[in-house]
Amino acid sequence: MTTKDAITIADLARHLGAEVEGDAARVVRAIQPLDQAGPDALSWLGSPEYLPRFEQTNAAAVLVPRDIDVPEGHTVIRVSDPDLALCEVLTLLGPAPPRVPLGVHSSAVVDPGAKVEGAAIGPNVTVCTGATIGPGTQVHAGVYVGAETRIGRDCVLWPGVVVRERATIGDRVIIHPNTTIGADGFGYLFRDGRHRKIPQVGRVIIEDDVEIGANSAVDRARSGETRIRRGTKIDNLVQIGHNCDIGEDCIIVGQCGIAGSVTLEHHVVLSGQVGVIDHLRIGAGVQVAARSLVTGNLRAGHVYRGTPAIDNNQYGRQQVGIRRLPKMIEQLRELRKRVEQLESAANDPERS
Amino acid sequence: MTTKDAITIADLARHLGAEVEGDAARVVRAIQPLDQAGPDALSWLGSPEYLPRFEQTNAAAVLVPRDIDVPEGHTVIRVSDPDLALCEVLTLLGPAPPRVPLGVHSSAVVDPGAKVEGAAIGPNVTVCTGATIGPGTQVHAGVYVGAETRIGRDCVLWPGVVVRERATIGDRVIIHPNTTIGADGFGYLFRDGRHRKIPQVGRVIIEDDVEIGANSAVDRARSGETRIRRGTKIDNLVQIGHNCDIGEDCIIVGQCGIAGSVTLEHHVVLSGQVGVIDHLRIGAGVQVAARSLVTGNLRAGHVYRGTPAIDNNQYGRQQVGIRRLPKMIEQLRELRKRVEQLESAANDPERS
Amino acid sequence: MTTKDAITIADLARHLGAEVEGDAARVVRAIQPLDQAGPDALSWLGSPEYLPRFEQTNAAAVLVPRDIDVPEGHTVIRVSDPDLALCEVLTLLGPAPPRVPLGVHSSAVVDPGAKVEGAAIGPNVTVCTGATIGPGTQVHAGVYVGAETRIGRDCVLWPGVVVRERATIGDRVIIHPNTTIGADGFGYLFRDGRHRKIPQVGRVIIEDDVEIGANSAVDRARSGETRIRRGTKIDNLVQIGHNCDIGEDCIIVGQCGIAGSVTLEHHVVLSGQVGVIDHLRIGAGVQVAARSLVTGNLRAGHVYRGTPAIDNNQYGRQQVGIRRLPKMIEQLRELRKRVEQLESAANDPERS
Repeated sequence: MTTKDAITIADLARHLGAEVEGDAARVVRAIQPLDQAGPDALSWLGSPEYLPRFEQTNAAAVLVPRDIDVPEGHTVIRVSDPDLALCEVLTLLGPAPPRVPLGVHSSAVVDPGAKVEGAAIGPNVTVCTGATIGPGTQVHAGVYVGAETRIGRDCVLWPGVVVRERATIGDRVIIHPNTTIGADGFGYLFRDGRHRKIPQVGRVIIEDDVEIGANSAVDRARSGETRIRRGTKIDNLVQIGHNCDIGEDCIIVGQCGIAGSVTLEHHVVLSGQVGVIDHLRIGAGVQVAARSLVTGNLRAGHVYRGTPAIDNNQYGRQQVGIRRLPKMIEQLRELRKRVEQLESAANDPERS
Repeated sequence: MTTKDAITIADLARHLGAEVEGDAARVVRAIQPLDQAGPDALSWLGSPEYLPRFEQTNAAAVLVPRDIDVPEGHTVIRVSDPDLALCEVLTLLGPAPPRVPLGVHSSAVVDPGAKVEGAAIGPNVTVCTGATIGPGTQVHAGVYVGAETRIGRDCVLWPGVVVRERATIGDRVIIHPNTTIGADGFGYLFRDGRHRKIPQVGRVIIEDDVEIGANSAVDRARSGETRIRRGTKIDNLVQIGHNCDIGEDCIIVGQCGIAGSVTLEHHVVLSGQVGVIDHLRIGAGVQVAARSLVTGNLRAGHVYRGTPAIDNNQYGRQQVGIRRLPKMIEQLRELRKRVEQLESAANDPERS
Repeated sequence: MTTKDAITIADLARHLGAEVEGDAARVVRAIQPLDQAGPDALSWLGSPEYLPRFEQTNAAAVLVPRDIDVPEGHTVIRVSDPDLALCEVLTLLGPAPPRVPLGVHSSAVVDPGAKVEGAAIGPNVTVCTGATIGPGTQVHAGVYVGAETRIGRDCVLWPGVVVRERATIGDRVIIHPNTTIGADGFGYLFRDGRHRKIPQVGRVIIEDDVEIGANSAVDRARSGETRIRRGTKIDNLVQIGHNCDIGEDCIIVGQCGIAGSVTLEHHVVLSGQVGVIDHLRIGAGVQVAARSLVTGNLRAGHVYRGTPAIDNNQYGRQQVGIRRLPKMIEQLRELRKRVEQLESAANDPERS
């Protein structure tokens, strides 16, 4: 199993604690969706709606829920949650991500006033004075950890990440390459025709189990804090402005931009390229569709869409209207003619 | 005052050259808006419209303009410009940003042909041949300064900044982490079904007092120059295309994208996620609302909004129309029925 | 010619294998468009539509197609393709981009298990175990090359680029500063109120002659591969999601975001700030206008625009409608009044 390149279905099922129906001796080398799977691939049936694809699949075996009837003729592995089982298989079959060796690489520059016991510090890393990095944390090549920044246990900072001074990062946080934590917020006073920089002396707090994608930026607070709460997942190229408070278990998809002092309650989902104007509050469980621009507070539990973002159903009706516009222009023109005819008939002395 | 953690109101006022009305002995540890301030916080009253919040605040003291009457019962510090005074207090109370020690860190690679006297060069920095870095400039860890690039005095280049060859950067310029200055412009010739790269041999000029946020990119010119003029402030994740000429004292908010050869005159404000098509000119003082797409030249002094960006008032009227569309469809349908009834009545021989 | 600062028109023409009409002794120091060119500049006439500018130009000489009649009085260099000739001149006159010296810089950290013969490895670079970098490839300062990543010949990786483990990069690929290749795709399972990370064990394949701009991100596949095919050019701040298959010779302009599992066929053009929803297919030769949001599959060879992206002509008609909306509201109101008058007249017993 060290190569992790191939595994029999029997071994796979044993690993998952699952039962096989069919040919358990076949070997699996890849994981593919039902419609793309070849005869050496494992696939999965996430929901009954994909049963037609299941019937057609060439997969060696399919992860299937325990309680679903499937047509005969395919090898299936019965599990309680195929999507979760798939994650286990990905971890099992996929090569493990690289790990930085424990200790400090000889090319890293770790200030004597920093504490990095139990952490793994890669090449060309810089750790400034007063910083603390917890045990089990992987700091990949070229990362910068600023003065007095505290990073918890079992985090992963991928290459090129910059975390500026006085940030606090919890446990099991993952930050992807070239992302910046704690750059100055964007704030100026306009005086005498010029922009004067407002000092940005606050900080960033990132709680446990947060993940932040590549090339994103989370700004430090002007004063006080910018906070990303436990379990929130942020994609690539996202901007989080100064003094934001991002709730627990949110999902923020690629290229979203959140201006300063915005509050997201928990379980908010912002799809890709959403923008949020400053100082707004987005209620718990709100979902905002891709490319929407949020210009007002949003009520918990609703779905919003559009620029400006409005209730999703209302947006749908507007879109129907916009698609009908060319026809409406014609209808209006035709109606005017008919009214003119009626008017001229009404004014015609012959007919009165 | 070295800890900068706490200060009495009396000391604060003395520092600002201001008068206290009320209890000058209380201690201030934080700076917070009126509605969030606790009893150890300083707050500020930027304009009379916030007087209701002033009445309710728990702040230890409030920075207040000299010429405004405020209700009694709060400790106030009278200043001519509370927002400016706030900046001074932020600098005073907030921890100072970290400084790279003067000189060249032992892990930095500075070409013998580069001049860095008086500058502070941090760990793992690379400075190429012929580069010049002025006195007082802070070059943080992992920065790259390309060949023959000239950087002025008292600049700050935060970690991970890349400035490619032959750029010119003025004095007091701040560039935030992981930002790229002088990458190739995006230009190709389409020949025989393939894209041939157009050489990008120009350069970037960034004038005094410019600030550029994190993870942004300013492309070098194809030939000639891309120029960012004095005092302009650019936020995170912004793209400035090749051969742009960005005027003085502009504000370009996060995730804006400006295509090649665009000219912004002075004091233009582009809100977040604005796009500008190539080869356009945006007049002095223009303001473009968030998420707008500029597809034509814009007249100085006006406000624009939308995709495509149009006059803000015109945009407002269109939005009224779009919101009314579902109702208009109904009205049109109803009107058609009424016209049909009129027509059938007019054609009814009984009625004529 | 080593300084490349100035060249006579005669020398220039000789270099291009072209004929001069006019004063071949003048010296050219710059390349500028017709309307900006001074008396020491070379300009070019790409198409006859610019003939009016040609007449007014002060350029020392103009590159002109062989088959076009131009007014007398200007020095011209006759070439078959002025745009292509211009590229040659840019290369000739412009300073050559800096090159990393062959070999491994003493500050670079190259794992003994990596192969970098014939490559140029700059300062503070990290190359991990099992990586291969081909001859002629330039790896600039601070780049990270992950374990078992294979990079071909004659590539350029500009400073701060991160290529994570197991990627494959072809020949003559250019990647601009601070770009991230192979970060984890964005995928979670929502279970018990929390987001569980789906392992991202796939990889990235970038084929020959691809160019990727600054501060962009191409995610690794969940399993299988994310692929960018031969000759495709990608601009700055672009996001390519996991498991995408980007066809040959595509153009993807700045700040585009492509969600997971999207297929672009060959010769697709996405203008700036376009978004593409996940699991879609965009047909060969499709052009999508700036700032559009693609929410469905697009048919080969067509032009699309808008949010959601629709056929460009249909979009144009909708925009006409939106611009007319304020007038339509008035027309509808007026028409209602007229219908009411007709109705009241029809019901008026005096008139019946």
